[in-house]
Amino acid sequence: MSRRRLLAGGAVAGLGAVAAVAATGDPAAGPAAASAPLDPGTATVPFHGPRQAGVAEDPPAHAAFVAFTLAAGTDKRGLARMLRLLTDDAARLTQGVAALGDTDATLAVLPARLTVTFGFGPGLYRAAGLRSPVADLPPFRIDRLQTRWSGGDLLLQICADDPLTVAHTQRMLIKDARPFAAVRWVQQGFRRSPGMQAPEHTQRNVLGQLDGTANPRGPEIEPAVWNPDGSTTLVVRRVRAEIEKWDLLAVTDKENATGRRLESGAPLSGSQEHDEPDFTALDDAGLPRMPDFSHVTRARVTDPALKILRRPYNYDGVPNALGHPDAGLIFAAYQRDIARQFVPIQQRLADRDLLNEWITPIGSAVFAVPPGCAEGGWIGERVLT
Amino acid sequence: MSRRRLLAGGAVAGLGAVAAVAATGDPAAGPAAASAPLDPGTATVPFHGPRQAGVAEDPPAHAAFVAFTLAAGTDKRGLARMLRLLTDDAARLTQGVAALGDTDATLAVLPARLTVTFGFGPGLYRAAGLRSPVADLPPFRIDRLQTRWSGGDLLLQICADDPLTVAHTQRMLIKDARPFAAVRWVQQGFRRSPGMQAPEHTQRNVLGQLDGTANPRGPEIEPAVWNPDGSTTLVVRRVRAEIEKWDLLAVTDKENATGRRLESGAPLSGSQEHDEPDFTALDDAGLPRMPDFSHVTRARVTDPALKILRRPYNYDGVPNALGHPDAGLIFAAYQRDIARQFVPIQQRLADRDLLNEWITPIGSAVFAVPPGCAEGGWIGERVLT
Repeated sequence: MSRRRLLAGGAVAGLGAVAAVAATGDPAAGPAAASAPLDPGTATVPFHGPRQAGVAEDPPAHAAFVAFTLAAGTDKRGLARMLRLLTDDAARLTQGVAALGDTDATLAVLPARLTVTFGFGPGLYRAAGLRSPVADLPPFRIDRLQTRWSGGDLLLQICADDPLTVAHTQRMLIKDARPFAAVRWVQQGFRRSPGMQAPEHTQRNVLGQLDGTANPRGPEIEPAVWNPDGSTTLVVRRVRAEIEKWDLLAVTDKENATGRRLESGAPLSGSQEHDEPDFTALDDAGLPRMPDFSHVTRARVTDPALKILRRPYNYDGVPNALGHPDAGLIFAAYQRDIARQFVPIQQRLADRDLLNEWITPIGSAVFAVPPGCAEGGWIGERVLT
Repeated sequence: MSRRRLLAGGAVAGLGAVAAVAATGDPAAGPAAASAPLDPGTATVPFHGPRQAGVAEDPPAHAAFVAFTLAAGTDKRGLARMLRLLTDDAARLTQGVAALGDTDATLAVLPARLTVTFGFGPGLYRAAGLRSPVADLPPFRIDRLQTRWSGGDLLLQICADDPLTVAHTQRMLIKDARPFAAVRWVQQGFRRSPGMQAPEHTQRNVLGQLDGTANPRGPEIEPAVWNPDGSTTLVVRRVRAEIEKWDLLAVTDKENATGRRLESGAPLSGSQEHDEPDFTALDDAGLPRMPDFSHVTRARVTDPALKILRRPYNYDGVPNALGHPDAGLIFAAYQRDIARQFVPIQQRLADRDLLNEWITPIGSAVFAVPPGCAEGGWIGERVLT
């Protein structure tokens, strides 16, 4: 895991892909290596290891979340066959090597930090005759869920710094899965392009908010995200932004709804993005600087082990004839235990979060993320054999 | 225009945005400037000038082509009002300044080589009581055009190296246009991410082909693209890739269909991408090395002034349940005269191009691209006043 840790660590420094490559370069080369003409297109993230990639690393710029519905009759043996195929091709593609039956090998040469992360939905365990470690979320009163963005027996989270790499990987892996499963939904998302994030490293969403500031960082990630066996869980929610309504707000109203300054991301009680919010601070009028019902106030988690690791991507579909956008967030969060970590936060937000006025969950899915595998192994081997 | 030329020239060297910024930096700084930590997010392309930006520069990684239908009754005066608003905000946003009524100013700070290029469809001239310099294309036998991707009275071609910048710009400009026009269609596309293109600078499309090799370059652009008054014309075609069929072909069959090697882009008569194809060369069996009906053979133009400047973007929509992709090319081409330049090429391709088997035009639109404007002016002022 050490190289993967380095990748994640390098990226936290805010230099994205370039730093990631530099961090894995020859240390003897010294600082000069940082100014060498590094090609972020050929940067790779290791596929094999006790934990899957695509969770703790700095998220690449583009993602496709591809959910499948298993074909009737796909049993434990069929699942194992499918997962061997998928693992094999995912491992190759992430290292810049064409898939085994790659029909467009020229599109495999720039992995651009490609990761493929496998998630197993409750239906996959049912098909295998096993007890699922994850269950559908309870309904929340803010939900307006649509079937076409919800559920799924198998998820492939495909991330890379290049959209053509994502498109090609998606195509090859769907072909592998086709005999065993139908495409249920695909959500395509983006973050800032490689190299664009400085000085703001944290993701900015379509509402203009910095998104993910309170994420666990460094040593906090381990207890919040990873089970001892290398597994974790993933919640994917499609959250529509009601941008036309949001546009009617003044900046201070927007900031009161979130509890952070729009520009800097600083909590309203502080001045820097990563200042810890002070929920006891009062303003000149004696009112709490952090409004009681702000998003940050409602979402706060004091026990670091109960934090969730958000890894969201923006989406921006085609606006309607009136020019109203179809935009929002593919909210993706990793945590050890959905019921203990994600659900209480979402419940508090659903109960009373000022931001609810301007965001609507329209899709929801949960997945167990099995451990990684060694070379020659396959994702899911410990679950299905 | 000199700075804009520099931008385009720097990019031809294959270093994309970083080279573009370096090229506009202080020359006294010397080569050290190239290794300085440049931020491609703040790189800008000048908006004002005798010609519009977004044509001759190296294309940024992301684009939205937004076509509008004018509201009934939008006349010459209404058009002028709309274009003043759009010009004003486009000029600001391209320089990293928030739009006048910007409702999310934090999203305006990273222009990332943003350009906004205005195209006027035949309907705009009709609404203004003027004769249109462009006319709808003749039908081609390969066309399977869909209304939802065709036509348009006004086009905004929005390009930037960052997808969030494109999304924000699209949103602000649609709001400007809303009182005067409805959104007719939006096509969102991508090329390789910034910094990813080396060693292959030319666009690679979803079929794995290098796309745009034969483009006019350097001094060839002027006579092929620009009218003396600074105007040009734009054809936008949505070309669906029949990828599932393409996947059945062997590499040599793909190469015979295009007339180029997939990996290098070299013509089948040569060894390097930019080798001039030799249509007289024969292989060992005495057959032409460049097949008579290959795409390159059919598309070739000998008079440089009759070339077209292709500026395509890939699209990759959501696959269907069977996993068949919805992918292809937003073919965008600039030329002085559509009838003399684009139409004969498209006619030869429609008549007999092996590639027709694997690509289908499903959308089509033509636009006159009026000259640029000086500071304080507006795009279209010479047309509408």
